[in-house]
Amino acid sequence: MAVLVQVNFPMEGPWGAEMAEAFRGLAESINEEPGFIWKVWIEDQSAGRSGGIYLFDTREHAEAYVAMHTERLAGFGIAGVEVIYSDVNESLSQVNRATLTAG
Amino acid sequence: MAVLVQVNFPMEGPWGAEMAEAFRGLAESINEEPGFIWKVWIEDQSAGRSGGIYLFDTREHAEAYVAMHTERLAGFGIAGVEVIYSDVNESLSQVNRATLTAG
Repeated sequence: MAVLVQVNFPMEGPWGAEMAEAFRGLAESINEEPGFIWKVWIEDQSAGRSGGIYLFDTREHAEAYVAMHTERLAGFGIAGVEVIYSDVNESLSQVNRATLTAG
Repeated sequence: MAVLVQVNFPMEGPWGAEMAEAFRGLAESINEEPGFIWKVWIEDQSAGRSGGIYLFDTREHAEAYVAMHTERLAGFGIAGVEVIYSDVNESLSQVNRATLTAG
């Protein structure tokens, strides 16, 4: 069953197009992570917050990624990473047009 | 620009297939909400938590939905609803195979 992960943390930028340029290589590397399905990159410049919403195939793969990613964020000087793991109710999500495979 | 909304709250059930049956009509109604794009339904029976990850077309539509939905949850006896609104970095999300349209 797919596992959804909400990752939120404080960030000082970059934002928008500059963020996309700065992290494009990192994003490409995420596609290679075991069990990774998709990620929505989120940002809130006014609140100084960023993060991502991830879908993984299993809880084990999600936890292994988050452990690695939290260390990587620490290397960028980012602490205070908040993580919520959830199961996905696939039946209801399909009613509501969510894509649970790689788009 | 698309707006992602993380909604998390305590819930005592139902879970899984029973949850899908109980909320199917509600899910269908959500498809009719202005600006709604998709929702991933999340659940964590062991933590007694549920919620949803939503994509809306604008912040205004997202806020109007959340105001209505929070009242509806209160009618189910659910309080302690936590909401995070974020912009979506569409360029990075597309690299990571996210679907930003209705699936």
